[in-house]
Amino acid sequence: MNDSKSDPESAALSALRRVFAHVLAQAVLELRPGTLLGAVQATPDGFCSDFVLHEALHPEELPGVEARMREIARAGFPDRIESLPAADALRLLDERGQKYQRELAALSLESGQKPRAAASIAIIRHGDVVQFCEAPEAFDVPRLDLERALEGFELRSLAGAYFRGDAQNVMMSRVSAWAMPSRAELDAKRADYEAAGLREHKKLGRELELFAFDDEIGPGLPLWLPNGTAIRDELERLMRELEFDAGFERVATPHIARQELYYRTGHLPYYADSMFPFMKHPDDPDGAVFALRPMNCPHHHKVFAAKRRSHRELPFRISEYGHVYRYEDSGAVSGLLRTRCMCMNDAHIYCTPEQVVPELLAVLEMHRHVYQVLGLSEFRIRLSTRGDGSAHANKFVKDADGWARSEAILRQVLEQSRMPYFEGPGEAAFYGPKIDFQFRMVTGREETASTLQLDFAMAERLDLSYVGPDGSACRPLILHRAPLGTHERFVALLIERFGGAFPSWLAPIQARVLPVGEAYDDYAREVQRVLRSRRVRCDVDLSGPTLGKRIREAALRKVPNVLVVGEREIASRTVTWRRRGSSLQESVSLAELEQRLGEAITARALDQ
Amino acid sequence: MNDSKSDPESAALSALRRVFAHVLAQAVLELRPGTLLGAVQATPDGFCSDFVLHEALHPEELPGVEARMREIARAGFPDRIESLPAADALRLLDERGQKYQRELAALSLESGQKPRAAASIAIIRHGDVVQFCEAPEAFDVPRLDLERALEGFELRSLAGAYFRGDAQNVMMSRVSAWAMPSRAELDAKRADYEAAGLREHKKLGRELELFAFDDEIGPGLPLWLPNGTAIRDELERLMRELEFDAGFERVATPHIARQELYYRTGHLPYYADSMFPFMKHPDDPDGAVFALRPMNCPHHHKVFAAKRRSHRELPFRISEYGHVYRYEDSGAVSGLLRTRCMCMNDAHIYCTPEQVVPELLAVLEMHRHVYQVLGLSEFRIRLSTRGDGSAHANKFVKDADGWARSEAILRQVLEQSRMPYFEGPGEAAFYGPKIDFQFRMVTGREETASTLQLDFAMAERLDLSYVGPDGSACRPLILHRAPLGTHERFVALLIERFGGAFPSWLAPIQARVLPVGEAYDDYAREVQRVLRSRRVRCDVDLSGPTLGKRIREAALRKVPNVLVVGEREIASRTVTWRRRGSSLQESVSLAELEQRLGEAITARALDQ
Repeated sequence: MNDSKSDPESAALSALRRVFAHVLAQAVLELRPGTLLGAVQATPDGFCSDFVLHEALHPEELPGVEARMREIARAGFPDRIESLPAADALRLLDERGQKYQRELAALSLESGQKPRAAASIAIIRHGDVVQFCEAPEAFDVPRLDLERALEGFELRSLAGAYFRGDAQNVMMSRVSAWAMPSRAELDAKRADYEAAGLREHKKLGRELELFAFDDEIGPGLPLWLPNGTAIRDELERLMRELEFDAGFERVATPHIARQELYYRTGHLPYYADSMFPFMKHPDDPDGAVFALRPMNCPHHHKVFAAKRRSHRELPFRISEYGHVYRYEDSGAVSGLLRTRCMCMNDAHIYCTPEQVVPELLAVLEMHRHVYQVLGLSEFRIRLSTRGDGSAHANKFVKDADGWARSEAILRQVLEQSRMPYFEGPGEAAFYGPKIDFQFRMVTGREETASTLQLDFAMAERLDLSYVGPDGSACRPLILHRAPLGTHERFVALLIERFGGAFPSWLAPIQARVLPVGEAYDDYAREVQRVLRSRRVRCDVDLSGPTLGKRIREAALRKVPNVLVVGEREIASRTVTWRRRGSSLQESVSLAELEQRLGEAITARALDQ
Repeated sequence: MNDSKSDPESAALSALRRVFAHVLAQAVLELRPGTLLGAVQATPDGFCSDFVLHEALHPEELPGVEARMREIARAGFPDRIESLPAADALRLLDERGQKYQRELAALSLESGQKPRAAASIAIIRHGDVVQFCEAPEAFDVPRLDLERALEGFELRSLAGAYFRGDAQNVMMSRVSAWAMPSRAELDAKRADYEAAGLREHKKLGRELELFAFDDEIGPGLPLWLPNGTAIRDELERLMRELEFDAGFERVATPHIARQELYYRTGHLPYYADSMFPFMKHPDDPDGAVFALRPMNCPHHHKVFAAKRRSHRELPFRISEYGHVYRYEDSGAVSGLLRTRCMCMNDAHIYCTPEQVVPELLAVLEMHRHVYQVLGLSEFRIRLSTRGDGSAHANKFVKDADGWARSEAILRQVLEQSRMPYFEGPGEAAFYGPKIDFQFRMVTGREETASTLQLDFAMAERLDLSYVGPDGSACRPLILHRAPLGTHERFVALLIERFGGAFPSWLAPIQARVLPVGEAYDDYAREVQRVLRSRRVRCDVDLSGPTLGKRIREAALRKVPNVLVVGEREIASRTVTWRRRGSSLQESVSLAELEQRLGEAITARALDQ
């Protein structure tokens, strides 16, 4: 909706967003003295600033931060902007202990045009706070109406973000905002954006033929088409490998169970509304009533219970890509985000009290690794606790000591793994607290994509035990975890993350061969055979339509590797390799193509 | 039950079985002149003979063959046994066109002790028939009571068997029999064997911790434990690879659909008895009634229908390891053979009439390849037709031309692929004829383990179409195929085939490290790590119990590779490698172990 804006107006808005990012930093540094500041940036929609906080910022605090920002801006922020000799500026940031700001300031010198010796660095001062300022010119751009703009921004999210976008670095807390010239424009943007976003993964899902729905199957029950299934399968293969390496064993369990099981676990009657109607045959000699399972846990617990277990078998880790069914309201189902059938990347770990902390740390490390492989750096971590319990007293198991102990363990583990988090009182599972990984969809809606739960109650309910070293029966603690959540939600997230342009390893069509004319169709098929023999998902778009048309079609399909072949390529046994999103093309031999593309896929490289 | 038999008695029974095998060959060669005879053998339970028949033998004919065998035996079979000079005997078999008998006779010379020049070959003559006789001494062993023994045998099965057990050779029809000294002993054996057999895969399933059942889950709903899941996963990986290579694309579809879909396909009301009760929520605003699917087909047809398809996309091949649910009577469910939840190795091929024959041939070739990989050589092929249709007139779609055309196509394909088969009138699917691969379980019960179906009716019912070359809408023909049937039934078959002693690639525990004492526990763990880093399923049984006890435990668990480590192995960075079923052991370096074991697993070698 900003397309019609003139350039000066657009430049003024960008400048304003930069200024507001510094105002945000000012507000947070005042609110939490000792906070370390990271990047301070304008974004296409607003602005964001990153922090290492000693005490977590809670979403409930954001309105207070917004109010403080307005005060700061109205009081004439900043007091002053100084251009200091580089050495002096760096020393100042050092003295303040702002090591990340210092690193960014030093980096700005390297990329600058000025000779290093003559370099200066701008420093913003306001009250006691100093900030490195990468673009002081932003403060000189003719301002938009400040009062109107102060009603046109909104702090929208708190998420984790690695310093300089590198998972090897510390994870910082990023506060992100939208900023528009006025409240009316902010409201319009929000409405437009949410409508567009709502269509986003569904639209790409249809265009790229990833999934479909059918009235005769029913609402909320996706049919995964070949292209979407290729993505699911790749994710599943990734997790199987990581899980094997981490000592998980796979199991496979049915999607139904007798209704009685869910009464025993306590899911019923509490969960009845979200379950499918039960199946009761009038002539069943056992009088059995079956239920489609709403979660995999009880089935896994029955695997644990299938034999007498010794403490020597613990930790016992079992995983399954298990399907569950929930009877979401047919009006509420939406694309892959609200479905009635979900395939969970589920696992349960049965362990002794001594094993809980190392197991939790290992699972968090797996989460971190998976996000890194997938290039997901923006999320925030919620420690979901029982809260004071008064609001949902019936929802949670009654065991105050158990809650206190379990919540303390999760807090300890989060501190130990240096992951910033906020608390979500009342968001726990009924059987224990959990750590949730929250992602924001383009609609602005936040979704729990991954979870790690500490269950201190279910072993008792289902009478699960192991034989301890002294021969006595002991209750295991149970961790529930799902780093990739469900296929449905996670693929929706990835569709949006990549805008449908998946890296080669995940792409449904990894390579497409285009012969420039009919004489080269056979060679094109040969190239396809060579790649398919390495199990690369390669297709061929034979001559007929013009080459330009077929290249555009491949771009629409977001095929990451397009291989054009003609006279020269046949003669030299090569292909002309065009990477998606790049205008460069290169001529490589078949053998080299096979090797390089094969390696990129095996390494799960985040090429784009 | 024959353990107590004295040796002479047992030798007499073996000799009798050999003689009966020749009597069987005599009967079949008389019944079907021109038949080529293969191996003629005694077996641990009876005897068998192999044939290349120009006209298939039907199971209904076996009682007639038994009766003719009794006549032949009572008439004093054989007329005579001649010991001929080798060259003369081979010439005689040549003249009769008995090329397989000639090959076996020639082979017997090579393995014989006699110098080649002096070698003689025994030939049996009876009427016009001649047979090579490998063990003429069998005819000299004091006979058991012939009349009693003629009531103590039973022709039990017709199956395919490759000549000399090699899948590169022609597949012959094998007639197998049990033979005991009397009818009473035959009856007793049958009863004992069936009872033992019934326990067999269930007993091994429990001992090897492959699967379990739980009352709170429900009857017929197996929980696949980690060991059983490892086998499933390996089979699935095999099929995924073969299917990728054969141009199949994978899909993933929900396990439920609206009830209406099954009325439209015609599965309902016909199939209602074997379906789970339907799920109807009283408050569902759409009034939707859901059903657990009893087969995957309609969901796959909906994938085909998800977009407008061009003839250029055909053949469109989609596959899924899809779960289906059938409401078997709770008294009828048994181990993995009769379950209420099944995971099918399913696929559907949508093609033009011109593509049907090549697609069918390719699928049969995939079946053959899979059986070869799994070492399954004994099965028989049934062409399941509508028959005269009078018995089950309502069961089959009404289209006499469609049936005639489709059955003719399957016959042509079976002839062309040189696979012997028999016809099963009335055994077709309701939508078309099929080719079934029949395996006999140790219980004696025959099971359809794999299937290939030609469906000429469903595209019409569901209004499936593609755009033909001239732009008109055409109906696709649909092939349904499942080379590995269901995980449940096929794993049961493999458990019995291997007696639980799976080859390394399929074995749940592929290798186990045994340190001879505590000082070597760390090295044992290192060996395990090395193998697991190659994704070999390797565990370690640490010192504590004596080595002998742990070796016996590994043998009970049928672990194919046991690696013993002690002082010498640490010093030389080796392991002592004991293969299951072999008393030999060998010392190999870690690197060599990793490489050789890795190769055997990758090659899916049938080591034992």
